[in-house]
Amino acid sequence: MTGIAELPEPPYTAVIFSSLRTEGDQGYGVMGARMQELAKSQPGYLGYESARDANGFGITVSYWVDDDAARAWKKVHEHSVAQQRGKEVWYADYQVRVATVQRSYGPGSSGS
Amino acid sequence: MTGIAELPEPPYTAVIFSSLRTEGDQGYGVMGARMQELAKSQPGYLGYESARDANGFGITVSYWVDDDAARAWKKVHEHSVAQQRGKEVWYADYQVRVATVQRSYGPGSSGS
Repeated sequence: MTGIAELPEPPYTAVIFSSLRTEGDQGYGVMGARMQELAKSQPGYLGYESARDANGFGITVSYWVDDDAARAWKKVHEHSVAQQRGKEVWYADYQVRVATVQRSYGPGSSGS
Repeated sequence: MTGIAELPEPPYTAVIFSSLRTEGDQGYGVMGARMQELAKSQPGYLGYESARDANGFGITVSYWVDDDAARAWKKVHEHSVAQQRGKEVWYADYQVRVATVQRSYGPGSSGS
């Protein structure tokens, strides 16, 4: 389980990964924990949020200081291997959207 | 259940809503369905993705043609009422992040 990430003030980069899982674990749980650990050790890592429902649809958002840090993470070797295995085995479908967060608000600040 | 949203080419705006639910439904299910329906009828609406895990942590991303459309949706009266009730009853915690999507890729396009 993850919760709401504690992040600095915007701007920063969000990588929104939406995916539909295939059936069965097939090593997915171990890989997920390892990738979360590896991401944390990367330069420019800010935080991570993830939720998956009972139907296998999930959204994971990783947050980075800037777009260069997000691109560098995509290219880390062990992560590249996991992406390839994700395509082949773990995900029936997925989409990645890379975005610049402009503003953020929570219960204490109503935003506009 | 939602799936992966079919969206046009970037840029567009993503509103990332991360939240932790309180216990029990308390009208949440009915409101959620109504808000999804209402959002679809707003100008500039592009799509919607949502996942919530068994621990009550969820991520919903709504997509809009631009930031103005996202701001306008926030201010729609019935949605404002739902936001207020969300603060008071449905969410133990939440955070909203408004972002400009710069690029997107899926299984058919590896991105960079």
